[in-house]
Amino acid sequence: MRVEGNGLTRIDDPADPRIAEFRDIKERDLAGRQGRFIIEGTVVLRMATAAHGAGAFAVEKILLLENRVDGVQDILAGVPEDVPVYVASSAVLDAIAGFHLHRGILALGRRVAEPELDALIDRLPERALVVAACGISNHDNIGAMFRNAAAFGADAVLLDETCCDPLYRKALRVSVGSVLSVPYARGGSILSLLERLAERGLSIWGLSPAGTADLREIPPEAGGIALVTGTEGEGLPRVIMSRFSTARISQRPGLDSLNAGMATGIALYEIARIQQKI
Amino acid sequence: MRVEGNGLTRIDDPADPRIAEFRDIKERDLAGRQGRFIIEGTVVLRMATAAHGAGAFAVEKILLLENRVDGVQDILAGVPEDVPVYVASSAVLDAIAGFHLHRGILALGRRVAEPELDALIDRLPERALVVAACGISNHDNIGAMFRNAAAFGADAVLLDETCCDPLYRKALRVSVGSVLSVPYARGGSILSLLERLAERGLSIWGLSPAGTADLREIPPEAGGIALVTGTEGEGLPRVIMSRFSTARISQRPGLDSLNAGMATGIALYEIARIQQKI
Repeated sequence: MRVEGNGLTRIDDPADPRIAEFRDIKERDLAGRQGRFIIEGTVVLRMATAAHGAGAFAVEKILLLENRVDGVQDILAGVPEDVPVYVASSAVLDAIAGFHLHRGILALGRRVAEPELDALIDRLPERALVVAACGISNHDNIGAMFRNAAAFGADAVLLDETCCDPLYRKALRVSVGSVLSVPYARGGSILSLLERLAERGLSIWGLSPAGTADLREIPPEAGGIALVTGTEGEGLPRVIMSRFSTARISQRPGLDSLNAGMATGIALYEIARIQQKI
Repeated sequence: MRVEGNGLTRIDDPADPRIAEFRDIKERDLAGRQGRFIIEGTVVLRMATAAHGAGAFAVEKILLLENRVDGVQDILAGVPEDVPVYVASSAVLDAIAGFHLHRGILALGRRVAEPELDALIDRLPERALVVAACGISNHDNIGAMFRNAAAFGADAVLLDETCCDPLYRKALRVSVGSVLSVPYARGGSILSLLERLAERGLSIWGLSPAGTADLREIPPEAGGIALVTGTEGEGLPRVIMSRFSTARISQRPGLDSLNAGMATGIALYEIARIQQKI
């Protein structure tokens, strides 16, 4: 058990350099800076410490509101002793973060190793379910994709080079930590990513209101299925729509397309059922 | 066609009282103040002017970035002549709004008549599809519910007294204006709302990870179906879970429940198919 003076260090000065990474966290985002990212809340901290053990991500330091310490002792028990845990009063914590942090739980994470696309694709199981995203820069949508990928048992998320980093604070929070549990890779063109998956034997299905098949008609391909989502405004590039199969989600005519995160969630739900994953 | 000096008034002073409602719109929210609300963007303005004609909502004034005027002349053509349309430079507009308003389209709306629950329920068609929300205070989730209610042909949305106002700026924006097109009522306890629907002959289905039926097993009841969503943390109150039928959305075991907006979207998609609405 961590107690003050023994594994727990009190911070009284918001300008203390030991907690510099948590300063004004709304105003800047660490994502992309040497793979570091901000963890918020009990659930995501728990997932991050589990991921720490698995080797893909590390927890570098933790900053807690003083009255939250007791409630997370079970999580702290899984944190290596050399990871510093800081504690602060509500006034000091709010001054550090730059806003009222009612959750009272912050941590600094680091991606230990950039995920390797080749290794990720090699590890895909039979009847894999993969999400591939093209140009999704909205943090809510990226977060929702990971949360739903976890909920419906997707084996991987692939983000093309024009997607935002899923370790952005808001994306990670919206994913409820699933960015740390669902294998993913980011980079390259959407066409190159999809061609790699097709070579591996997956059937590629672009999601679009103009898709030729109804989502529910997609057969449970033995080689697995990759669902491709584009942005709400632009949709998928023409080269993707013409090169691969396309499916639509039934909806009332004459309306805007669904939100990109919602469309991906419904497609994952439907395909996970077709594949008998849920 | 509205041109400057003829139906179009230039604003040069950000403190001009004629556009006071648009000042610092991020910092305050008009919703609930005499039924007034802020409209942003072309799509929502178009829906608001259509709703203006239908009598449920009125557009009171419009404020445009000068270079956006030409692009919305078709919308302005549908706006009554006594609705003032103001135009401003980018610098003045940003100073009014309090942030960089890249869409460049703002309007002030007003709910003309508070929707009447009785009238709304009386107007429900055969095989109605209704969403009932309990305690949803997150603007994103409320907005998503309306957007999906529109996409999947729901006939009404009922919000209990603990839900937030769907006319909040962010909720309306996330709904892509569907708050102005999908009939809704807000107020009363969730139990009283559901009992009214049950009296009207609708089958009530509470959505919960602990639901007894799989969502897909819900029969296409002749009297219609009401789907009930609670908050992610608390779920539905026990009195609702025990009083009505409950259904679950299949997902992988051992994970958090789905986001409330996402769960409602998937349920609407599934039931709209069962009811052959899509």
